[in-house]
Amino acid sequence: MSDTLTRLAAVLEQRKQASADGSYVASLHAKGLNKILEKVGEECTETLLAAKDCEHRDDKSELVYETADLWFHSLVMLSHLGLGPDDILKELERRFDLSGLEEKASRQHK
Amino acid sequence: MSDTLTRLAAVLEQRKQASADGSYVASLHAKGLNKILEKVGEECTETLLAAKDCEHRDDKSELVYETADLWFHSLVMLSHLGLGPDDILKELERRFDLSGLEEKASRQHK
Amino acid sequence: MSDTLTRLAAVLEQRKQASADGSYVASLHAKGLNKILEKVGEECTETLLAAKDCEHRDDKSELVYETADLWFHSLVMLSHLGLGPDDILKELERRFDLSGLEEKASRQHK
Amino acid sequence: MSDTLTRLAAVLEQRKQASADGSYVASLHAKGLNKILEKVGEECTETLLAAKDCEHRDDKSELVYETADLWFHSLVMLSHLGLGPDDILKELERRFDLSGLEEKASRQHK
Repeated sequence: MSDTLTRLAAVLEQRKQASADGSYVASLHAKGLNKILEKVGEECTETLLAAKDCEHRDDKSELVYETADLWFHSLVMLSHLGLGPDDILKELERRFDLSGLEEKASRQHK
Repeated sequence: MSDTLTRLAAVLEQRKQASADGSYVASLHAKGLNKILEKVGEECTETLLAAKDCEHRDDKSELVYETADLWFHSLVMLSHLGLGPDDILKELERRFDLSGLEEKASRQHK
Repeated sequence: MSDTLTRLAAVLEQRKQASADGSYVASLHAKGLNKILEKVGEECTETLLAAKDCEHRDDKSELVYETADLWFHSLVMLSHLGLGPDDILKELERRFDLSGLEEKASRQHK
Repeated sequence: MSDTLTRLAAVLEQRKQASADGSYVASLHAKGLNKILEKVGEECTETLLAAKDCEHRDDKSELVYETADLWFHSLVMLSHLGLGPDDILKELERRFDLSGLEEKASRQHK
């Protein structure tokens, strides 16, 4: 399962070229960046609500579902702007073996 | 790089047990779910703004940085609630080889 | 126009009791808090995107439209939880004539 | 209390001209639109979390506090872009005495 994101990204690139009628991904690209970002924001909100609901119920399937939607639409966003999951994973690798303190310091560069 | 998320998740599990003084991740867990979700929401907003800025400038490094932050904090959220990246990747696999239309239909189960 | 929010809140209270078939507001209440909060989050994202688009175009009507949607749905949220605009305006009054520094300090009580 | 937003907007316009050292509002304007929008997004997330917490506790003061923060920062955003609360209230008036169905239809113009 370790290359799921890479394989998913390949599928997303194919669908980017597909007809907007038959492919949800192609229809998002056709509608443009704002529509894609609306979906990212929407799925983030649904993820937060699902996470809050986990505080009071045992079933976590909704959170898994919404987080998958959030990652999926962030991949569509990356694809729309000429990036892919490897760009993000490389950035995470860069921070990876830092100690907690160093990591925090590097996160606060902004 | 294909197992970055899995290795990162292992580091996150270790830091969950660490002292909140020395580890940013441990300090997030100590502050609780709301604090972690605030960070997820914050990084999502910063991702959207960085993506919009890509419309008018060539440099995409800010978007890479913010998306990495978004994924990172969503992994901390999953870890806080006893889940990990494999749960999300499995869900993405489940939808993976669907055609655009079928995928859309399944996405609309909610 | 100074009592718009109060009059709007009165309309929202009436519609809270209305049939979910004929009233958008009643249908939101019937679907429950998560649905209402999804709309608040969605309208916030659309407000952010409309504000970013104001950086590169003269027409601000989209931002006015989306901010109205954000305030509208936050009023529905307040109504759903037994609150109204006066509760928020009172809180804003409380901070109102503070100097910049004092205001900031009070905002950081959390 | 009916003109709170109008009076608050007047204060915000004054502070827009103030020194960024002494005024939180002036410091936001100095940091620019992205910083202001980050705050709007952040306060929206905190509002959603506070609303979810109202499902399981009686105290609603946190929700009042966060919604005030959301409205406050959306007023700073409007001010930064040359708009004010009256622009939003006028838009809400325009939709005001519509029936539920008509209102919904008009909301779906986009």
